[in-house]
Parts: sequence; C-alpha cells; structure tokens
Amino acid sequence: MKKTLTLLAFLSLLLNGFSQNPDSVFIKTIFDNALTSRVAYHNLEILTNIAPGRLVGSEESIVALKFLEKYFKDLGADTVYLQEFKTHSWACDSSSVSILKKKSREIHLTCDALGTSLSTPPSGIEAEVIEVQGLADLEKLGTEKIAGKIVFFNRPMKDTFINTFAAYGDAVDQRAHGPAEAAKYGAAGAIVRSVTTSLDDYPHTGSSRFPEDVRIPALAISTIAANLLSQELKDNPKTKIRIFVKSHDLPEVTTYNLVAEIRGKVKPDEAIIVGGHIDSWFNSPGAHDDGAGCVMSCDVLRIFKELNIQNIRTIRAVMFMDEEMFQAGGKAYADFVGQSGKRPYLALEVDEGAFTPEGFSVDAPDSVVNKLHAFKSLLEPYGIKYIRKGGGGVDIYPLKNLGVPLVAYVTDPQRYFDMHHSGNDTFDKINYRELNLGTGCVTTLIYLIDKYGVE
Amino acid sequence: MKKTLTLLAFLSLLLNGFSQNPDSVFIKTIFDNALTSRVAYHNLEILTNIAPGRLVGSEESIVALKFLEKYFKDLGADTVYLQEFKTHSWACDSSSVSILKKKSREIHLTCDALGTSLSTPPSGIEAEVIEVQGLADLEKLGTEKIAGKIVFFNRPMKDTFINTFAAYGDAVDQRAHGPAEAAKYGAAGAIVRSVTTSLDDYPHTGSSRFPEDVRIPALAISTIAANLLSQELKDNPKTKIRIFVKSHDLPEVTTYNLVAEIRGKVKPDEAIIVGGHIDSWFNSPGAHDDGAGCVMSCDVLRIFKELNIQNIRTIRAVMFMDEEMFQAGGKAYADFVGQSGKRPYLALEVDEGAFTPEGFSVDAPDSVVNKLHAFKSLLEPYGIKYIRKGGGGVDIYPLKNLGVPLVAYVTDPQRYFDMHHSGNDTFDKINYRELNLGTGCVTTLIYLIDKYGVE
Repeated sequence: MKKTLTLLAFLSLLLNGFSQNPDSVFIKTIFDNALTSRVAYHNLEILTNIAPGRLVGSEESIVALKFLEKYFKDLGADTVYLQEFKTHSWACDSSSVSILKKKSREIHLTCDALGTSLSTPPSGIEAEVIEVQGLADLEKLGTEKIAGKIVFFNRPMKDTFINTFAAYGDAVDQRAHGPAEAAKYGAAGAIVRSVTTSLDDYPHTGSSRFPEDVRIPALAISTIAANLLSQELKDNPKTKIRIFVKSHDLPEVTTYNLVAEIRGKVKPDEAIIVGGHIDSWFNSPGAHDDGAGCVMSCDVLRIFKELNIQNIRTIRAVMFMDEEMFQAGGKAYADFVGQSGKRPYLALEVDEGAFTPEGFSVDAPDSVVNKLHAFKSLLEPYGIKYIRKGGGGVDIYPLKNLGVPLVAYVTDPQRYFDMHHSGNDTFDKINYRELNLGTGCVTTLIYLIDKYGVE
Repeated sequence: MKKTLTLLAFLSLLLNGFSQNPDSVFIKTIFDNALTSRVAYHNLEILTNIAPGRLVGSEESIVALKFLEKYFKDLGADTVYLQEFKTHSWACDSSSVSILKKKSREIHLTCDALGTSLSTPPSGIEAEVIEVQGLADLEKLGTEKIAGKIVFFNRPMKDTFINTFAAYGDAVDQRAHGPAEAAKYGAAGAIVRSVTTSLDDYPHTGSSRFPEDVRIPALAISTIAANLLSQELKDNPKTKIRIFVKSHDLPEVTTYNLVAEIRGKVKPDEAIIVGGHIDSWFNSPGAHDDGAGCVMSCDVLRIFKELNIQNIRTIRAVMFMDEEMFQAGGKAYADFVGQSGKRPYLALEVDEGAFTPEGFSVDAPDSVVNKLHAFKSLLEPYGIKYIRKGGGGVDIYPLKNLGVPLVAYVTDPQRYFDMHHSGNDTFDKINYRELNLGTGCVTTLIYLIDKYGVE
C-alpha cells in the first residue's frame, strides 16, 4: 500500500490543481463544505433517536416533521411549511410467532407484522404450516392443502445477483402479494422469510397488498428464524405454529409533507425539488431508509445558504410522508402542485441509503437525460460513474404526469438490504464520509441544473 | 425505488443471458460460487477470534499460521508449507497517556504505543507538551523549545480528499517520521493524533521509523483524545502529561510465510501468486487489515478446487508475515524464490480490506498492463471499473526486482481508515457480500491470467 501513496498524492495534487474550469473550482468548494460539515450526520443521529418507527399516522412521524421544520426555520429558509393532506393508515401494536413443540414447549421466532396485516384473535392462531417457495406453488397446492393452514413463503433473496435491488425485485413478490394470494386459497395466515441479504435475527417488514375483503394476519420472520422453521418442518411436517398480531387501522389521518425553499433570484417559479421520505417502518429507526435521504436533502439547502449561491431557480426540499405504505405523500404533493398550476422544474429523490455514490438515473425525455449526462465529467472525480436513463423515485413518481423530469440518486447497493425495513437500520450503520459524499454529489447536480437548466 | 425494480430485473435477465462468450459463462460460475459460499467469511471470523493482535513474533501470529495451514491441508492443496526465515521484532506490553490536572487529578487518554516505541521508565515521563501541525514546525521551534518536552503531532487527516489513501499519505509522515525527528531536537517523547477518518476513541497505531540511536517513547492517541488535549493546551499551555510505555525488542525471531499451491497441469513452474499478510498490529483483530486479504486468497484455491479448474499454471497462495513493521516476510519470500531460481509468473496482493470492488492496479511493463486491461470487460458486470497501471503491494514489492508483474486488488476506500490499525478493525465490520464479491473478482482475474497468460 505504501508504494501507491506517492502516486495517490500526485493524483490528488493533480485533482486539486484541476482548476481551469470555474465549475470544477466551485464544485470543489461544495465538496469541501459537504465533507467537513457534521450537520447532516448530527441531524440523522437526532432524527433516528427522537423519532424511530415514524410510520404515517404515528406520533413519531409528527416529531420527525417538527424537528426538520425547526431545522429549516433556524437555517433561514425563505419558505417553510407543512403541506397538509388526509389519508388512512395502519399501526402494529404487537406480534409474535412461536413453534409449538410437544409438551407445551414453544420456540419464539423473531417477527414483525407486515403492513397492513389483520389482527389475529387475542389468543392467536394455531395451525399447521405449509412451506412454499413462491406464489406459483399456491396454485399447485390448491385450496384443499392450504385452507386453514399458515402459508410460509421461504424463497431466499438470491446472493448471486450483483445488484441487490435486482435480488430484492426477484424475491419481494412473496411479501407484497403472497399473503393476499394465500388468503384466496383459505389460508389462516401467512409468514414470509425476511427479504434481506443478511443471515441474521432481524425481521424485515414491508407492505403486503390486500384487496379490501381478503386480509389475513401476515408477518415477516428473520432469515435465521426461517431456516430454523424450515428445518423443523423437514423433521416434523405436522409442526404447528402460533401466530399473533395486534394491529389497527387508522381510517382517517391528517398528516403532512414538509416543504422548505430558498427562493430563486431570477426564476422563482421554477422549483428544483430535492427530497426523501420522512416516514419509516414502525420497527425501524430508518437511518438509511430514508432518514439519510432527508438529512442530505436538508443539507443541500444549508450548503446553498452557506456558500451564498445566487440560485436562479428556487431550490425546494420536500420531506415526503408515507412512502412506505400507501405512497400518499407523493400523490398528495403532486395533486397540490398540480392544482396550484406551478409545475416544478425538476425533482430529485434521495432514497437508496447513505452509501458510496454511484450515479444518477433519470426518468425524462432523452434531451433532458443528455443534458444531465453532460454534467458527468464534473462529478466523476467524486465517484459518480454514470448519469443515465432509468427510474426516478416512488415519492416523485406522481409528478411525472405533470411532465416533471425525475432524477434518482444511486448508491453502492451491497449493504442496503442488510438493514432495510428492520430494527437494524440504525444510525451506527451510517458512515460519515459516505453520507457527506452523497450530499456533495446531490448538491452539485442541483447546482449545475440550476445554473445551466435542462432544456 | 419500486419503479426501478422492473428495469433491474430486466437488466439482470440480460446479464444472466449474456452468455455467448464461454468466459462470461464460466465467470458467472465463479461468482455464483464465491457469492454463496460462507467459507471465507467463516475463516475470517475464526482468524480474528483466535488470533487477534498477530504481530510478527507473537504467539498469535503462529496460531494464525497454523489455522490457515490446516485449512489448506484440509482443502487438499497439492503443496502446503511454512517458509521459515529469521527476523527481529518488537512487542508492546502496556502503555498509557494522562493529562495531569491540578490537585493530582488525571485524565486518561486512549492510546497505543507506536511500533517500535522505546519504553519509558516504569514511572513514565512527565513533561510539558508542545503541539505541532507537522514535521516542518520542529525546525522552526528548534531544540530550545522542544528539548525535554513531549511533542504532540496533531495535524488531522483531511476529510476533503476523495480517496482516503491520499488523505492517509498526506498525514502519515507525522506518525512515520515525526517521533524520530522530534528526538533529534531532544524531545522526551512523542504522541501522534491517530491517522484515521473517524472521530472516535480508538487509538490507531502503526510503524514509526527510528534510526538505531535515536529512539524515544512514541504513542498514538485517539482523535477524540487529541481534540481534548489540544483544547486543554489552549486553556493551559503549561499542561503536563505523563506518558508510559512498556515494550521490548525481540532481537531474533524465527517465523514463517505460509505457502499453499494447486499445481499447474501444463506449466507447473509458472506460479501465479495471490496473497495477503497474516500479521496484524498488536492492538487489532485485523479483520480488514489484512485478515480479509488472507481468507480471500485462501478462497481462490478453494474455488479452483471446487470448480475443478484445470489450471495451466500453478496457483499459489502466500500468507506473508510482517507487513506491518519491517516487511520482512515479503523480502524473505523474494529471497527464497530468487535463490531457488524459480521466478513466479505474476503476483497479486489483496490488502485494501473487504469493501466493494473497484479495480486492479498493475505494476508491470505496459504490454502486461494492456493484456490485463483487456480482461476488464469480463469483470465490469461485477463492479470492476478499471485495470490500469499503478502500485502493486508492500509484500510483493520485493518480487519486482525479479521481474515479476505485480497486481493489487483495489476496493472502495471510504471506510478503510475508520478501522485501520486499531481495535475497531473487528469481524463485525466485514460485509459478507463485499468480501465475497472481492473473492469473485480476484479469482476471476487469476483464472483469466492462468488461461491466457500475460505475455
């Protein structure tokens, strides 16, 4: 390693000296600020401590909003407001899964209810388990073998995908649609192997979609618990388990997206949105998902203020509510700006965790993609490998109907699903440098979009 | 995020279907094996548990060698042996640093001795402290102001470098040469701010170079301790501290490099070396530095065996001893193969931790660099962004004199120096996927070098 240091010092001098281009010089100033500030990092520590489990409708979700509202006000943003909307929600009070061994011995499995699981009776549901590898197995088994049983979806998230989001996409149908499908065949309940890259004892929850009339109790169990249960079923196929869920619907919830702006000096009506989602699953501090996206978006405004950037367009941070269950915040926000007739200029979502930057993906016409791609060389020294056509984000997706170009910040995906939707998504999993590098990349792209436009 | 999954699933199908090229197909097999095996991960857990602090000359270093020697024998490697050599070493028994407040109150600072610090008297050394920002300050201050004092090197590792190895190179002169330089001006001892990207309470040790006759006691203190001491000195410049080191030299040590081979089926005399260093600092489990490099190198042989690869050349794993202090193992190994007259075909070092793969750097004539660069497209789907001219590695560097092409495996550098040379370099900092991706990349490159050669 020592022998490479001379070369690296030289390259670094080269980089520091790479200063003919005034944009390069100013971008270095942005990164110097981002990389030496502890504000975003501290905000995330506070957010995850004071408002873990900030699912829409929870007290914690309001605590989180108020914390960042105060941050924006203290920062001196030109406009700070809570955009109110009404939606419905769901809350989990308690849950358990136990293997019932002979002689009344129970083995407790770590679990969390899936949103929006139905409650069981107070004494739970005791039933035999039928293990399946996916939704296709249900049709083969049919009502005769499924009715009255608890269906156990146990197909693992595959290690062999290089991009973990692809692995997630390959496995998540069991959680998203498995319980509802099992219900059609008369299942008494459903448990799902956690959709995670990690072999550990954290349950990873998430949303499970139910038609109005077919909800059943549904839970995630940890990957270790899933392996244990699967082995138990091999040893004794008649094994019974007891599942218990206490949850309740919240039919009417008044909640908010948080909006903060630095007004544009030339074109104030052209708002560039940067945002993440303020909610997190009830079981999770939501450090990477998506506290990180929120504090990074907050930090974009801080850097614009501190560097006294004379932004042409309005730089607007939006903390979206309810990405996790019903995506109600994104829809409400699109409705709100749609009705106002003030179409945002562009929207950038930060919701892939605070890992080493990889690139930006753009959901917009080719002309916009090409314009953004032209900024790549300025961001390459900071780790951005591509700016290319691809998906935007869940919260900003409803803005697509208004013709708003969408951009997603993309990070190294290897560790994301270790923590995702679980109690393991804690602040100590955040790396200070990786978070700050991301803030630098996002701020820089927004700076360039503001300066040069995307038309 | 959900909207990007369809695209990712499609890309992944594309990747899985990208199978006209037989090399691509076989490389997928290598990665499927690497990414689903827990062998390297388990080996690293065991190694860091049974042999933390495995500095050359320690019992732990022998425990580590024997553990991996048994691994290679159980694996059925064709040749497994310990290559004996003699060297000298140093060991730290105990150390402390305290700020001496009035009324006999002491504030203990977390510290570790630097290798090869001299011992203090048993009661330690009490002296005033002179804080400097680097070696250049010493000359300005001169003997008058330095003699009898403890010099405190406190220039932080800069957050503003994008590559942390460059930041390390920028700061490490204080640790490597500061104490010896301070000694020339009559300093009673030296303490150095830990060279780390992390603001935490771990001391990060490392080697400090002394001429034969000017050794003084020298220690690293944590970054938090350094900030505390610096503030104390601002408040009271006459503050005294007490440093204590109990260490001893080991003038003659018999130790070993561990060598294991799968013999080449066609050209057995052309050995492709893959290796890491088995030693770690006395204060560190050495998970990333360099237990990871060892178990990944071990795993290359496992994959060659399991996939029944008919390797043309000999695949040779070498676990080098004493990278950390005197680089004696690398020199001894180069002497050994030099005397045997059997020049290795190529050597690849794995010593940048188990982080997401980035590339390979090659210290060899351009023709070899170009040949290796041609393999890049086969490795790109797995995260390799470059194969280019650059440094090799410390352990393999002495082989350069024999004309051996050198290659270093390069990883995402953001987190490496959080753990480096400290008690924080523990197994739980290892990500299973990142480790296994690295094994896949290294195994693949060696497979291609074996198959196609580098001439």
